[in-house]
Amino acid sequence: MVEHIYMDYNSTTPIAPVVIEKMADAMKKIYANPSGLHHLSRDAMDVVNSSREKIMNMLGAGEGRIVYTGSGTESDNLGIIGFARSNKNKGRHIITSSIEHPGVLNACKYLESTGFDVTYLPVNSNGEVEPEALENSIRKDTILVSVMYANNETGVIQPIKELVEISHRKGIEFHTDAVQAAGKLRIDVKNLGVDMLSISAHKFYGPKGVGALYIRDGINLDPIIYGGGHEFGLRSGTLNVPGIVGMETALDYSMKNFDDGALRIRTYRDELERHFLESIKGLTLNGGVKNRVFNTFNVTIPGVKGGEMVVMLELYNIFVSSGSACSSKKKKPSHVLISMGLTEKESNSSLRFSLGKFNTHDDVEKAKQLVPYVVERVRNTHARDCNKVAKGGA
Amino acid sequence: MVEHIYMDYNSTTPIAPVVIEKMADAMKKIYANPSGLHHLSRDAMDVVNSSREKIMNMLGAGEGRIVYTGSGTESDNLGIIGFARSNKNKGRHIITSSIEHPGVLNACKYLESTGFDVTYLPVNSNGEVEPEALENSIRKDTILVSVMYANNETGVIQPIKELVEISHRKGIEFHTDAVQAAGKLRIDVKNLGVDMLSISAHKFYGPKGVGALYIRDGINLDPIIYGGGHEFGLRSGTLNVPGIVGMETALDYSMKNFDDGALRIRTYRDELERHFLESIKGLTLNGGVKNRVFNTFNVTIPGVKGGEMVVMLELYNIFVSSGSACSSKKKKPSHVLISMGLTEKESNSSLRFSLGKFNTHDDVEKAKQLVPYVVERVRNTHARDCNKVAKGGA
Repeated sequence: MVEHIYMDYNSTTPIAPVVIEKMADAMKKIYANPSGLHHLSRDAMDVVNSSREKIMNMLGAGEGRIVYTGSGTESDNLGIIGFARSNKNKGRHIITSSIEHPGVLNACKYLESTGFDVTYLPVNSNGEVEPEALENSIRKDTILVSVMYANNETGVIQPIKELVEISHRKGIEFHTDAVQAAGKLRIDVKNLGVDMLSISAHKFYGPKGVGALYIRDGINLDPIIYGGGHEFGLRSGTLNVPGIVGMETALDYSMKNFDDGALRIRTYRDELERHFLESIKGLTLNGGVKNRVFNTFNVTIPGVKGGEMVVMLELYNIFVSSGSACSSKKKKPSHVLISMGLTEKESNSSLRFSLGKFNTHDDVEKAKQLVPYVVERVRNTHARDCNKVAKGGA
Repeated sequence: MVEHIYMDYNSTTPIAPVVIEKMADAMKKIYANPSGLHHLSRDAMDVVNSSREKIMNMLGAGEGRIVYTGSGTESDNLGIIGFARSNKNKGRHIITSSIEHPGVLNACKYLESTGFDVTYLPVNSNGEVEPEALENSIRKDTILVSVMYANNETGVIQPIKELVEISHRKGIEFHTDAVQAAGKLRIDVKNLGVDMLSISAHKFYGPKGVGALYIRDGINLDPIIYGGGHEFGLRSGTLNVPGIVGMETALDYSMKNFDDGALRIRTYRDELERHFLESIKGLTLNGGVKNRVFNTFNVTIPGVKGGEMVVMLELYNIFVSSGSACSSKKKKPSHVLISMGLTEKESNSSLRFSLGKFNTHDDVEKAKQLVPYVVERVRNTHARDCNKVAKGGA
């Protein structure tokens, strides 16, 4: 069997074996509906609540609550739409950034269609939201700020603590989409000061189909899915017990020996990045390197298209992304890179490498050899095509 | 280990071993994000779409589409709220029944808060919606009818085909919550004529956290979760590949040797029901027996409370429900039984038995012995308490 050189961890991570094991065990043993009255149900609810408490602890949340959802996107939607619905009498202005995940951006677009005003903060060329920009866009009717913790495409970490302080000084609540941060940063909601925070299990070696929203005490939300009133009345639908066990196990797994793991992956990432900068002519880095999660880098490679690089690299068993998984299929230029000042052409020539726990030194060595080689091949093909066209050939 | 006599299949079913096996396999092997560009992603999307096609076939849907969701409740919400949002310019009146699952009822309540009118059709003493009632409540501005296929508490099957015909004659679309029907009835959306149909995997031996909404071609919906535009733009959020594989496997499992399985479970159900009618004084059946799924019966037992029966029976390892799992914890009388004309007291003295594939003849024999015995014990305790009170005792 050919080994995959998987460098697309920001799209999704493989599930850790211990997570699969615990989930399979939960599927066999804890089958009852946690909302029932009998003890099989109560036992299932105990498992759900024990996971809840452990996840709260791992997020540094001494108080508040975790609401389980079906995805990071649903968590973002609940945090933003749910908050807007519940607090619309206080004001109808929301501030977010131009580089958010579609789960945030399109929740905001929906709110605009229902009478809300949304400000989309720009970012600087490093891909960072500048605190002054937030400061200047706050209005009297601003009720919520939502800025992501770490960007999915560049890995750039946003100055959440500062942004929260600015918001709170004006009495405005703060949500952060931490989907790309969880497992890559030590999240501490108390220290950050955020009022709501979204995570998604499949980004940190857990199952797909399970997310969570942390909600500080005192924050009022309306649900976005209505039914039996599960999850404090905020998210109806039978609880996904094995998925919840999987999320808890995965968060624990991703945070165990955190520093050692981060150091190893950071070393691989830095080595690859340095090598590409040295060996691929014209290649430029996207996003500041100072505040960046340890696993990600994003480059623009003149003379190639991101999409064609993805399908060329897969021939050599290297798996990366052009842009985010969500947007890459739509062949639209990355809204993140465009916001950072790249041209459409530069954006379309960009590639994201995102590494993770299962990458090896060997993966890095192979990618160091193969990526520059593939870039050269693609560039030569283009040059040949151009020559043919110039000479009147096919 | 004590064997559980689990007779609460309508709350949730144990997962079939083959489903766990296939899901664990998918978790190991198909980890990529189906929305990416490279072939690991395309392979994952192939799996998603192959499951989609098989589920479509098993539901008798030659055309139209399946949208994957996170639960039956989300499917109901998408079908009803999504339809209302997209079609509000045609009218703002919706008709449903008074015995729906909270996933339908509370989606309708939410719509009422946004300016829609909702009519809640009554049911007769058999627990059936009467076609004339629908006929009489249709208005010029009615855009949608939503009536469940089989009721979760009584198992009573609604006359969907007739209700659809009445609705379509007036150009009104029809959604059915088939969460309790899937796996218990041969669903054929074409034959039924419905425009939308909701299912949930954990009700037919599949995983929790996975649902689907069938949508006929030509039906326009807005999403209720906004993001990357997955699932035809109707349900954003990374696709839960292993969960989807689990749902497909489970639907296949539940429909295999359908007649034999149904006959066996029906025989057990009928035997238990008959025995209780004969041996428990005053016990009455709730819901018509003519149109009823094969696994469910619901009884009122004067002189006991449903909730106390559930916790007494668990001491003997018999697991049943009083009302639905969703409502039983709230200690409210069942809205289904109340709609059928039961008093609050009768409703609170009711129990639901719902059987399934893993029940054995031995389970039935034990339940035949134990349930009447426990009823007798509870009644005697109450009588003793009453005597004490009458005599001025504690």
